[in-house]
Amino acid sequence: MATNNAYEETFIRDCWYVAALADDVDRNLQRRVLLEEPVVLYRNLAGEAVALYDACSHRKFPLSMGKLVGDVVQCGYHGWEYDCAGKCVNIPTSEKIPANTDLKSYPVTERYGLIWIWMGEKAKADPNLIPDCSHLRSVANGKIDMQCHYQLMVENLLDLSHVTFVHSSYQGHTHLASVLPKTETQGNVVVMTRSMTGAETPPLWHKVMGLPLGAPMDHDQRLEFHAPGSAFVKQSVYPSGERHRSYGFSTNHFLTPSTPKSTQYIWLISLDWPNVDPEILETFRKGVVAIIEQDRIAVEGQQVNLDLLRNKPFDPPQRSVPFDRTALASRQVIRRMASPEPQGVQAAE
Amino acid sequence: MATNNAYEETFIRDCWYVAALADDVDRNLQRRVLLEEPVVLYRNLAGEAVALYDACSHRKFPLSMGKLVGDVVQCGYHGWEYDCAGKCVNIPTSEKIPANTDLKSYPVTERYGLIWIWMGEKAKADPNLIPDCSHLRSVANGKIDMQCHYQLMVENLLDLSHVTFVHSSYQGHTHLASVLPKTETQGNVVVMTRSMTGAETPPLWHKVMGLPLGAPMDHDQRLEFHAPGSAFVKQSVYPSGERHRSYGFSTNHFLTPSTPKSTQYIWLISLDWPNVDPEILETFRKGVVAIIEQDRIAVEGQQVNLDLLRNKPFDPPQRSVPFDRTALASRQVIRRMASPEPQGVQAAE
Amino acid sequence: MATNNAYEETFIRDCWYVAALADDVDRNLQRRVLLEEPVVLYRNLAGEAVALYDACSHRKFPLSMGKLVGDVVQCGYHGWEYDCAGKCVNIPTSEKIPANTDLKSYPVTERYGLIWIWMGEKAKADPNLIPDCSHLRSVANGKIDMQCHYQLMVENLLDLSHVTFVHSSYQGHTHLASVLPKTETQGNVVVMTRSMTGAETPPLWHKVMGLPLGAPMDHDQRLEFHAPGSAFVKQSVYPSGERHRSYGFSTNHFLTPSTPKSTQYIWLISLDWPNVDPEILETFRKGVVAIIEQDRIAVEGQQVNLDLLRNKPFDPPQRSVPFDRTALASRQVIRRMASPEPQGVQAAE
Repeated sequence: MATNNAYEETFIRDCWYVAALADDVDRNLQRRVLLEEPVVLYRNLAGEAVALYDACSHRKFPLSMGKLVGDVVQCGYHGWEYDCAGKCVNIPTSEKIPANTDLKSYPVTERYGLIWIWMGEKAKADPNLIPDCSHLRSVANGKIDMQCHYQLMVENLLDLSHVTFVHSSYQGHTHLASVLPKTETQGNVVVMTRSMTGAETPPLWHKVMGLPLGAPMDHDQRLEFHAPGSAFVKQSVYPSGERHRSYGFSTNHFLTPSTPKSTQYIWLISLDWPNVDPEILETFRKGVVAIIEQDRIAVEGQQVNLDLLRNKPFDPPQRSVPFDRTALASRQVIRRMASPEPQGVQAAE
Repeated sequence: MATNNAYEETFIRDCWYVAALADDVDRNLQRRVLLEEPVVLYRNLAGEAVALYDACSHRKFPLSMGKLVGDVVQCGYHGWEYDCAGKCVNIPTSEKIPANTDLKSYPVTERYGLIWIWMGEKAKADPNLIPDCSHLRSVANGKIDMQCHYQLMVENLLDLSHVTFVHSSYQGHTHLASVLPKTETQGNVVVMTRSMTGAETPPLWHKVMGLPLGAPMDHDQRLEFHAPGSAFVKQSVYPSGERHRSYGFSTNHFLTPSTPKSTQYIWLISLDWPNVDPEILETFRKGVVAIIEQDRIAVEGQQVNLDLLRNKPFDPPQRSVPFDRTALASRQVIRRMASPEPQGVQAAE
Repeated sequence: MATNNAYEETFIRDCWYVAALADDVDRNLQRRVLLEEPVVLYRNLAGEAVALYDACSHRKFPLSMGKLVGDVVQCGYHGWEYDCAGKCVNIPTSEKIPANTDLKSYPVTERYGLIWIWMGEKAKADPNLIPDCSHLRSVANGKIDMQCHYQLMVENLLDLSHVTFVHSSYQGHTHLASVLPKTETQGNVVVMTRSMTGAETPPLWHKVMGLPLGAPMDHDQRLEFHAPGSAFVKQSVYPSGERHRSYGFSTNHFLTPSTPKSTQYIWLISLDWPNVDPEILETFRKGVVAIIEQDRIAVEGQQVNLDLLRNKPFDPPQRSVPFDRTALASRQVIRRMASPEPQGVQAAE
């Protein structure tokens, strides 16, 4: 497998992606480019999130450059108006509204503090397919755009040995790069689990959980990747051997492709212990922001090489080791979802 | 008709375009990219405007980076010299001037305060084909580069319903988006006319013409589009029913494609009433500058969507209503000019 | 020959290029893009320069974003380690190192204060093929990146008539653009020689060598171009007729393609006269920096035109005169090296 086809050129459309943090969607029209498609997001008067194709049927003007009048989006160019279902309800210059002037609207579900969007075939948009995030007790969150293919960030999360090297100043310890995990694929979900004993407490867990810096701690990880874009890293750390003193938390990552070279990345921290001191929480939040910035620099550096090496005959294929099986499992699941098998029997009917 | 072929990829060459405002052309060498062709503009010692191919025959160095020595353009790289007809008259390193070293020169005509250029077949460059601008009494003008296909700006001008929405704070009123015009195509000219009665006087006409803000006014428009790049919007406004108190003026627009995604836009204001107070004129001029900036933001936003949606199978074709017939007429004329019919009989001779 | 194929699209790989000034390579990992290939440069503990492929075998992360641990380069992403020969010596997540994980290393030779690199077939990397620079007594040097095809800069150096026009304020005089040189091609080397008598002493030689400004001087030039990237301009200037009062010096130019539109340019000044006053030397150095900046503006302007005119049917081929034979000889040599003849007899054995 050559480098240059390790990552998919076709986006998976029939699935739920996170379009936005729920708190970020309001009565302002906001443009997002998702799967190379322009989308305008807003809330209607009832408070429900709405997502429409962000190109007026008339002359492709971005509706996000227009304005919201009640529950109607008015195009800022020639005033064409659309309701929350994308139906064209008014054309100032025409009493009659011609056929085929409605805009595509996207199925949207607000759940877990997130706005989920379905970019594919509408009929398949079953909210039950939204990954179960019932573990979320979000205490902090954020959004960042990364200039890379979304799978680079997926694999960043699925190969946590990088923590030792990229994030050594925050939460890295050597066990992260040496203890082999167990990996299982269940449908479109890849689960990685491992327990690391006797690791050295790194700076961030020292500050946030009060474990003595460098003292031996145990560290359990369970990573659930719901292809193509959601990854939950559920973790517990505790003084070696004292699981009852466990600090449980998760970092939750939602990746939505914008273009083949850019990705919208939304993250949430969830803490399982009560009464967290606000200062401690702020230390945690800042740590995660810094860690994600370290990841951004890494994956964007990787993307620069991928661009340079694209279709270069001298570039050898990527090499993998057994530890990579979690990341490689994600490629298999994504490739399968991106290239659905022909449905032989039905097609024959 | 799909979005992505609504605008021509081939520029029309056999026609007059405005290369520059006459006042902007002087003894400095100026580079313009017109129809993807590099052009150097200057005035010779006799004061006549000259336009030459801006790439030295020798090593394609931009002559605009060289200097003018009398009536000779000297290349700034190896000193090759060309006269105002593009004839190579000196090569420092060679006593003999080889064949085929002359530069293309472009037919240029100065008229109406504008430098007109013919980018196509020289033999066809008849100055009588320059659009009649004898109505011009220019009191203000300007030049701006827009990052969009030139037809986006043509259609901006030919669908004046946009004034209601894009320019509401200056000269927009609702009648502009509701009164259906009469459209006629005469050869390469599209004429749109309409009269709007009882419109609310908008802020700019209030300030410039002294009509009471919001008071009923009548508004006559005659738009003449001379394909592919000249559009005159001749207007009169007056207190409702009092045509004898008419304020007549025109805004005149000259669009020259630079590349498929950039356009040189030159504009002039012409006023038909005498003794305009300089402060009022400055208000008018500033208003037009602000309005054109609003247009730039609009058409560049449209271009971003066109780029994103180019060749995307999910993007539906543009939809039009009867009001669009003026803009659609411009497409027909431009398409015809861009794809001349084969001249059957002559070809057979 | 049309403009657009005057310059090679395929880089010559089987030859020595200058990768860096020797003084610039140290214990920091430095990335260079050479011939569209990512290269990381550093010195090992023994002080020897090392060049490795700057993309980790694992996930193509730039190794230059990692760190040097003794003589081992540690990838900054997942910690894979490579020795100075590119051998993968450690993978933190795997006790076993799989096959084909070694990185390409590049033959490197330090000579004449320069780090030479061989980007092609290793077996052919004979240090005897490095151009003889034994004339170098470097007193000043520098590095600049130019946004142009490397041959534009090669031809800049090989057509020194440009000095009269581009560098008139420093070392230009009219004889440079009128005295025809003698040109000889010897294998991959093009040699140009000429003597100019009675030239007007230009400002820089006035300041540096103390010749009276404008006074008649003689000027000998010998240019040696070792294709594809090294050019030595060896010069002597002296009061007319007084060769025994000669000031000899050379400017030495090393061009390495980064991409088809960018070039790494390293230069050194060598002086043949002793005890140069430091202030005078600084004047010389600053003059060369300013001259190279003038060249950069020129060749980048040329590149803008080449990009604009690429594949445009209206653009005529470049025209040449006898003076161009030095530059044209470089094209012939480069074309031959870029498209080696099939080795019929050997291949048949």
